[in-house]
Amino acid sequence: MNNDLPLTREAILDAAEQVLRRFGPDKTSVVDIAKVLRVSHGTVYRHFASKASLREAVTERWLHKSIAEPLEAIAGNVNGSAVERLKLWLEALIHAKQSFSLQDSEMFAMYAAVTLDTIEMIATHVDCLIEQIARIIRQGMDSAEFKPGQPEVLARSIFIATSRFHHPAHAREWLAETIDADFDAVWNLILLGIE
Amino acid sequence: MNNDLPLTREAILDAAEQVLRRFGPDKTSVVDIAKVLRVSHGTVYRHFASKASLREAVTERWLHKSIAEPLEAIAGNVNGSAVERLKLWLEALIHAKQSFSLQDSEMFAMYAAVTLDTIEMIATHVDCLIEQIARIIRQGMDSAEFKPGQPEVLARSIFIATSRFHHPAHAREWLAETIDADFDAVWNLILLGIE
Repeated sequence: MNNDLPLTREAILDAAEQVLRRFGPDKTSVVDIAKVLRVSHGTVYRHFASKASLREAVTERWLHKSIAEPLEAIAGNVNGSAVERLKLWLEALIHAKQSFSLQDSEMFAMYAAVTLDTIEMIATHVDCLIEQIARIIRQGMDSAEFKPGQPEVLARSIFIATSRFHHPAHAREWLAETIDADFDAVWNLILLGIE
Repeated sequence: MNNDLPLTREAILDAAEQVLRRFGPDKTSVVDIAKVLRVSHGTVYRHFASKASLREAVTERWLHKSIAEPLEAIAGNVNGSAVERLKLWLEALIHAKQSFSLQDSEMFAMYAAVTLDTIEMIATHVDCLIEQIARIIRQGMDSAEFKPGQPEVLARSIFIATSRFHHPAHAREWLAETIDADFDAVWNLILLGIE
């Protein structure tokens, strides 16, 4: 990095993500990240109070870019059936989590660890996802595809009822042979309830 | 223990459970268990091939006695409403798991660890619980409290959809203030689907 330019928050997060991916969260220090940026660790600490807050910010950005943003494209599409959109949205969430757990395992492990500690940041991310589901449900209620009800409460219950398929604590179970059949069964239960 | 009596499997499990509770799974050795029984560790190994299989057998017995058996008393009661029985059963499962995580934390930690490794034993335990739910649902279908459907598939989907509240991987989330409201929301979604 060119040291003459002012050091932005984004540039620090880029370097931190790169170093965390290479060494893993346990073996990465703020000094390692400062080295990549060719600045002193004091400079990094002016932007982030601790290694933990840096780790949290990297995870938050990753969750936004790789989960919330792509899903927003599905939730924001107002054409077609709300049932199909809801299923597409859930499958996209599940597919994203399941592929990251295998193909971006360093970031996924960090996210799984951060989930246990940074309750507030994760709650904000989850609220953002639930709001997307609520929008799909509201459209389905408006078009009478779904029974009348409270979109926010239903959205939250659907998100929680599908935890087995997207919550990082279940990552090991995603390798089970029955996982797709189990999702179909839970999806059918949800549909019975809302259609 | 009186060394003149033949050493039963149950006696070994009693001693193992006692030692595992006292020292925790990591610090317990087969030698410790043999010492409590006043036998050689070779004698214990004649019944259990490894410390892992002993740990699995203790967990299996604990799950049966403290979860499956008390729940069977609810599932086996054919009087009254199936809706109420299903809710009572789920609440009893959730209450049992949540209190063990706080009040029997050594056994719960061992169970949480065993869940990740002994897939077959846990699958058998889960199948036993799902069979109990299926029986309640079948009764509800027979009495027309529930819509017609496949009791086994519905039972499995209800068990999975409530994972957030009883799967040990979620134990930290059970302390959240919203956990009871979240269960009510998921329960209402299930009811919408089956009634």
